[in-house]
Amino acid sequence: MGGVEERTTGRLAAFTDGVFAIAITLLVLTIRIPEPQEDLGQVLVRQWPAFVAYTISFLAIGVMWVSHHQMFTVIVRTTTTFLFLNILFLLPIAFFPYPTALVATYLLEPSGRTLAVLVYGATSVAIAVMFNVLWGYASRRGLLIPRARPNGLRTRGFSLGPVVYLAGTLAAIVNPFVALAIFAAVTVYWMLPGRLPGR
Amino acid sequence: MGGVEERTTGRLAAFTDGVFAIAITLLVLTIRIPEPQEDLGQVLVRQWPAFVAYTISFLAIGVMWVSHHQMFTVIVRTTTTFLFLNILFLLPIAFFPYPTALVATYLLEPSGRTLAVLVYGATSVAIAVMFNVLWGYASRRGLLIPRARPNGLRTRGFSLGPVVYLAGTLAAIVNPFVALAIFAAVTVYWMLPGRLPGR
Amino acid sequence: MGGVEERTTGRLAAFTDGVFAIAITLLVLTIRIPEPQEDLGQVLVRQWPAFVAYTISFLAIGVMWVSHHQMFTVIVRTTTTFLFLNILFLLPIAFFPYPTALVATYLLEPSGRTLAVLVYGATSVAIAVMFNVLWGYASRRGLLIPRARPNGLRTRGFSLGPVVYLAGTLAAIVNPFVALAIFAAVTVYWMLPGRLPGR
Amino acid sequence: MGGVEERTTGRLAAFTDGVFAIAITLLVLTIRIPEPQEDLGQVLVRQWPAFVAYTISFLAIGVMWVSHHQMFTVIVRTTTTFLFLNILFLLPIAFFPYPTALVATYLLEPSGRTLAVLVYGATSVAIAVMFNVLWGYASRRGLLIPRARPNGLRTRGFSLGPVVYLAGTLAAIVNPFVALAIFAAVTVYWMLPGRLPGR
Repeated sequence: MGGVEERTTGRLAAFTDGVFAIAITLLVLTIRIPEPQEDLGQVLVRQWPAFVAYTISFLAIGVMWVSHHQMFTVIVRTTTTFLFLNILFLLPIAFFPYPTALVATYLLEPSGRTLAVLVYGATSVAIAVMFNVLWGYASRRGLLIPRARPNGLRTRGFSLGPVVYLAGTLAAIVNPFVALAIFAAVTVYWMLPGRLPGR
Repeated sequence: MGGVEERTTGRLAAFTDGVFAIAITLLVLTIRIPEPQEDLGQVLVRQWPAFVAYTISFLAIGVMWVSHHQMFTVIVRTTTTFLFLNILFLLPIAFFPYPTALVATYLLEPSGRTLAVLVYGATSVAIAVMFNVLWGYASRRGLLIPRARPNGLRTRGFSLGPVVYLAGTLAAIVNPFVALAIFAAVTVYWMLPGRLPGR
Repeated sequence: MGGVEERTTGRLAAFTDGVFAIAITLLVLTIRIPEPQEDLGQVLVRQWPAFVAYTISFLAIGVMWVSHHQMFTVIVRTTTTFLFLNILFLLPIAFFPYPTALVATYLLEPSGRTLAVLVYGATSVAIAVMFNVLWGYASRRGLLIPRARPNGLRTRGFSLGPVVYLAGTLAAIVNPFVALAIFAAVTVYWMLPGRLPGR
Repeated sequence: MGGVEERTTGRLAAFTDGVFAIAITLLVLTIRIPEPQEDLGQVLVRQWPAFVAYTISFLAIGVMWVSHHQMFTVIVRTTTTFLFLNILFLLPIAFFPYPTALVATYLLEPSGRTLAVLVYGATSVAIAVMFNVLWGYASRRGLLIPRARPNGLRTRGFSLGPVVYLAGTLAAIVNPFVALAIFAAVTVYWMLPGRLPGR
């Protein structure tokens, strides 16, 4: 290792893919399995917030994975510091099932739903900020492939994320349903061809 | 990535394998662990729907993984849109432990079992449809290896899936046990040598 | 894939490693987390069967993974049928957290512990049998590297597994503690240098 | 395999990355999801030990993964014995969610928190010891790349771990909060550029 601190991104990508894959699959545990004596039809109707939260979070983590994947078609080297920044990036990703469960639990409770969506939004903002931290570090430290030097457009794409998620989070103070609709709309928008930041 | 939007499928396969591996392994959490004061012999007998649901779902996800694996021996390039279609494909895969738990919980309850098997069947139909969406997009966009252009036989193989699962799902309205037997039979049939669609 | 049914084992190994890694890590969920009002010291003492079951199962799945890993240094091709046999092999592996939880729950209950250890042993026998099925199919179908044709010693190594685990399982009828001790001893023995079957 | 027992580390790294990724992502399950009738604001405030435990454990497992990753840029061969040592190394890693849940549950309980932090510390000591066992075996058996023979500095780095964690664990007897602060400080220190042992 000596003085050469830079390495390839193979195991970084494998570990990151693992955390993404587990976080996205653990989401299903946020949907409560009813007891046999409960009426299943009623449960499925009453549980709609859990299905909505599951779908929005699944697509959101999916978009984040594709975005991370995109970023790492351009980032080809890594440093120890970058590995740790990636760990800090993964912290709110792996945390995502918790705010998802809060939204599923409280969306029908007038007293708790604003706070639940605020926690959900704050987690999304943290992830969006960490995307910028990762990208900024990789650009400045020269971890990119030569022909893919950062341009204004790409960087603007990533810096849009925190703004949009912060706006959605603040909207939760007025109306948590509007906030959720914003989160869903942003995710679907980014899934449209050619709309993902960093491309 | 500038104008070049197509990339190799390495990380796509790794992420997909991860979601499949986690979903198939999380199935075991749908089998309730009894309390020490319960009679274990009685519990094991009463829990037979959980063991049946576990086995059918495990083999079904296994067949789906092999099928996805097969498909990606022919699909060798990817686009951002294809990555998102694959995310939409993984959504019902990762959701599978939930309907499995519903079947395990309600199969002995006359009032809930039809609905439980309907949810189970609908999830299977969604997966079968997404197989066709993935395959159709990859064929039309030219993501296949040159010598493996789609032929009628292969495409017919994939389009059979939604029909079979829809038939099984509709059978649940008449008799949920017959529906489960159809799901199990289809899975076992596809495990026989040379029977898997897309080969 | 047309007439060529044989392929390399890359994604098979990746998927299998995923299931092993998840099953071995889910074991920790079989250890109940106490409530704050419980006395932690007493809980830790009373929970010793859970710690024992966790350790034995962790090492057992570890040995199985190393054994699978060993086998696949010699198996270098795969067929669709072999992929499905591997899925059948993974079924009892992924199921392992359930019998582990049964042993943890019932080892101190005179009425249930024999049955709990029997289920645990039967799962181990199933895995040991599937090792032989995998190895037998790979040998007969010529999926091995040329210089590693099966020899009697290797095959005898694998066929020892079911016998040993069956003996341990039958011992549970007399005394479940003796049975667990046999399972632990076999696992530790196979971890000693040069003792693993298939090497 | 015959007489040649040494092999490359590809699947070892993949399996290890899998266990690390699952253990770090399962941590989120240690944060209890409140019931709808509970006041969410109060729950979030009362749950602060769960958030603190989650963050410290997440970063700790992250540092351990980076450290393992570092070690395996130098370790390029493996033996069966080394695979088993790595399994023993992974045992306390995969166990980590349990002591994390104990700390989250008992940190506000004067009667149980010392013991909870002791279990947490003991698990950390076990991991730190296993790092030395892995490194010592790999050095002595010549599994390293030629130009990276162990030097005193590197070895001293790894042997510092058990001492530091043991000191933190013993501090828990006096004050569990001080012990947690030590664990957090050590982890953050190792995340600073150029501070990780083994580099």
